[in-house]
Order: sequence, then structure tokens, then C-alpha cells
Amino acid sequence: MARSNIYRMRIAFSDCDPAEIVFFANYFKWFDTASREFFTACGVPSWRETKAQRGIIGTPLVDVQGKFMNSATYGEDIEIESAVEEWRGKSFVMRHVARRGDTVLCEGREVRVFAIQDPENPLRIKAVPIPEDIRAACE
Amino acid sequence: MARSNIYRMRIAFSDCDPAEIVFFANYFKWFDTASREFFTACGVPSWRETKAQRGIIGTPLVDVQGKFMNSATYGEDIEIESAVEEWRGKSFVMRHVARRGDTVLCEGREVRVFAIQDPENPLRIKAVPIPEDIRAACE
Amino acid sequence: MARSNIYRMRIAFSDCDPAEIVFFANYFKWFDTASREFFTACGVPSWRETKAQRGIIGTPLVDVQGKFMNSATYGEDIEIESAVEEWRGKSFVMRHVARRGDTVLCEGREVRVFAIQDPENPLRIKAVPIPEDIRAACE
Amino acid sequence: MARSNIYRMRIAFSDCDPAEIVFFANYFKWFDTASREFFTACGVPSWRETKAQRGIIGTPLVDVQGKFMNSATYGEDIEIESAVEEWRGKSFVMRHVARRGDTVLCEGREVRVFAIQDPENPLRIKAVPIPEDIRAACE
Repeated sequence: MARSNIYRMRIAFSDCDPAEIVFFANYFKWFDTASREFFTACGVPSWRETKAQRGIIGTPLVDVQGKFMNSATYGEDIEIESAVEEWRGKSFVMRHVARRGDTVLCEGREVRVFAIQDPENPLRIKAVPIPEDIRAACE
Repeated sequence: MARSNIYRMRIAFSDCDPAEIVFFANYFKWFDTASREFFTACGVPSWRETKAQRGIIGTPLVDVQGKFMNSATYGEDIEIESAVEEWRGKSFVMRHVARRGDTVLCEGREVRVFAIQDPENPLRIKAVPIPEDIRAACE
Repeated sequence: MARSNIYRMRIAFSDCDPAEIVFFANYFKWFDTASREFFTACGVPSWRETKAQRGIIGTPLVDVQGKFMNSATYGEDIEIESAVEEWRGKSFVMRHVARRGDTVLCEGREVRVFAIQDPENPLRIKAVPIPEDIRAACE
Repeated sequence: MARSNIYRMRIAFSDCDPAEIVFFANYFKWFDTASREFFTACGVPSWRETKAQRGIIGTPLVDVQGKFMNSATYGEDIEIESAVEEWRGKSFVMRHVARRGDTVLCEGREVRVFAIQDPENPLRIKAVPIPEDIRAACE
């Protein structure tokens, strides 16, 4: 079974919109943080370090999907469970499940790549093959 | 062909992350705004008015997907083209394409419902059938 | 000495801007959350409950100041210490200090009021005198 | 009289919190954007260009104050008028006034510096004297 990590947080007032529920785009922000927390739990150095050491600026998304089952509101404590569902050649799939107690709030599936700055255009980025050592650390 | 609306904006410094590109979750915020701008362009009253008149608090998402093709950075002007791709019984599909000039940056597909506050639990929300008049205004 | 509360958090990648430091406006978001955490630690019910019980929707700001001494970046753990510095008739002053270890990153001073929805215009809000029981709970 | 610039925008649903008004920290984000729009209107190159040309990464804040007079909500069009109120040796004061029609919503005063990356610690930043040519362009 794939290694997973739990990221815990409390929903803030300002995370919610006038419908008094979490504004959905915040889940994607939290999934992004949860993805990084997963790597940290696996011992992967910060992207700042990987950038300095081998140019890798992080794991930008190429595709993401979210499915919203139940709403949540401020003051509620939630947890996000994250795991790599699949490793491909140049991309990998990260899966997140956000829960409040036993209630599933939202599921996310991110397709990410490891990226460097595009050597031909520093304003753009470029995917590189999955680094084997990072993959090994996460399995 | 479905009616569409264009939402124009300039990417701000604070919309970008340390990789110097738009933090992806911001696209979902902008798609949400673009969805509402679409309804406004079709003459649909604000959700504040619909809430007062018939309890409809807005069109929360049940599922959303984003596909990221090209990165964008601050100072760049982009536009988001939005249209309803499909009307179903209790949900509808909104499609967004974000472009910088001719370059497609990102595509989004949102499955939304029309919702009221759950009469049994004001902290939660509840889907209602698509209002026929709103659908007619948008076609 | 005034009662104080500590709110702890880790800075996320998406909290930072292209200068690779926390985008300053995020401190104000966190101060807001820290203010609410202070009230929660003092036993004050959620604003949702106070709204239902006596119309109080929260403690909106009338004035806020932030002083930024040192920058911080993602992956760093910080804490925000919050206390009520002064109680006035219709407003109170909340003071926050954000620290990374012994390094002060930022200080904030918020002047807040307790507010209800304006009975004459539900789109606007209206200050009410400081509730004595809430003040007592926080001292 | 100082040169000023107007930045126009429409408040989005997701800019508002459960009190149905703009979450105050968003004004600081918009003031930041309005500051940059001011420089752009004065012909100052992007911070990306100034970084490449002379190391200047932007104008981080050392102090900011906001005064909130009237609340605003989604769907409303507002404008932010921005001007440099004072030039000092190493800092300058930017003043912003946010208005909805004739109603002043919020006033902001930012003390900013021009900064470079700290040569001794790339994770931190360092103020430099106000560039004379940029100041001249803005007066």
C-alpha cells in the first residue's frame, strides 16, 4: 500500500465565502500544501534546496480534479490524507481526501510533474523526468 | 452554439508563487468569478437577490477539473471565456478557457448545482432542480 | 497582565510571492484567525452562535496596522501571540506579534468593533457596544 | 500635486467572507496591486526587469495601515486611487483610497522600500536607497 501522510488544519473564517462554507478553491491550496507536507514527511528536501542543488523548482500541476461531497465551515477541524497513487515517466498522480471526522468533504487528484525553469525562457517552466531518488523516498 | 462570456483581468504579483507563475488555485477562483460574470451577462440577478426571492444562494461546485497547459506570470493580461457546455437535471457543466493572446493557459470544467440552505441544517447546503427561467436566460 | 493566546502555523509555498517571502497581506489574514483563536481560547462561542443568539456577526476591523521587521518564507514554522491591549466603549485593540523562534517578523494592531447586520440595510453592518460578558471572559 | 493613478475592479463573491462583506485583508492585496499599477502608469519597468537589470525585486512593505469606513460586497464596482504621499531617503509612503462611487470604503497608507535580495542570505531581503530615476518618473 502506498505511503500516506495526514495534514491537519482548522478552517478559518476567511476561508469561507458568503454562503458560509469553504470557498472551494481553498481546498486546492490545501491539497498543494498537503502534497508538499507529504514530500517533507518522506524526507524530500525543500524545493528551495532542490532548486539550488539540481534546478528542480517544485512539482507544478498539469491537471487537477476535485470532487466536493459535503460542505464544511469555519471553526471545524479537518484532515487531508495524501498519497501518490501512480508514478508515470514524467508525471505522477497525487490523491487527497479531506475529512471532518468520518465525513468525506472533498477528494482531489493532482497530476504533477517535476519542473525546472525553462533554460530558454526564465518566465516559463519545463518538466523533467521523475527523479529516481525522490520517487524511492516516497514509496 | 452556446452563449459565452469573456472575463478580462491582469495577473497581479500576489497571484504568483515563488516559482514566479500563477499559483494554480487562483485559476479556480477566477473561473468562479467568470461563472458569475457569465450569469450577470445573461441578466441573472445577483445570488443575494435570488436568495431573498427564492432561497437560491448560488451555484456551488460538485466537481471541477483544471488542465494547465502553459504558465503565466504577473503583469500579463489574460482573458477567460466561459460557457455552459451542458444542462442536466440537477447540475450543469460550465467550461472555461483562459488565454494570453492566442496561448491557451488553462482549461476548466465545473459541474455546478443550484443550491439553497439545507432547511434541516443551516450550516449545510442542498441542491435544487435547475430553475427553468435561469436556464432560458443563459441559452 | 493581559491574557494572551499563541496561534502556531507553518508557512505554505502558496503563502509566498515571487520575492519568495510571505505576501504581507497574509499576515492580516493570520492575525484575523489568531484573533478568533484568542476568543475561542477564552471560551467565547463561535460568531455563528452569537449571531443566532444575539445578532453579533463578529468583530470587524475599523483600523489595522502592521509593521514588518523581518521576512519569512515557506516551510518555516511561526507563531502569533495575541492579546487585547485595550478595551474601549465601542471598540477594542487587539495586538499580535508574529515570531519565528526569537525573531520578530511582524507586529499588528487591530482596532475592532462588535457588529450586527445593519437593520436598515442587510448589505451593511453596524457597531454595537462591547458585550460585557465577552469582555469579562477575555480578561 | 502628486501624480495619482486609478485602479478599477469589481468585488468577487470569493473576496467576501461569511459576514457577506469584503474580507479586509483583500484590500491590502488590492492596494499592493494598485501600487504596482501606479508604477506601471509612471513608466517604471516590471520588477522582473529591474531585478535582471539592477537587482531590485520590488517594493516590500515595512509598515502599512488601513482604515475601514464602509463595508462593500460582491458585485460592486470600486476604484482605488493611489499616489506617493512622501519620498524619504530609503522609504516612501504610498496612499490609497478605495471608493464605491462617492463613498469612501477604506484608506491605506503603505511605507515601502526598494529592496534587493540580501547578498548574505538569499532567503532574506535588504533595502536600498530610492532609485533617483524611478522617483523622477513618479513625480
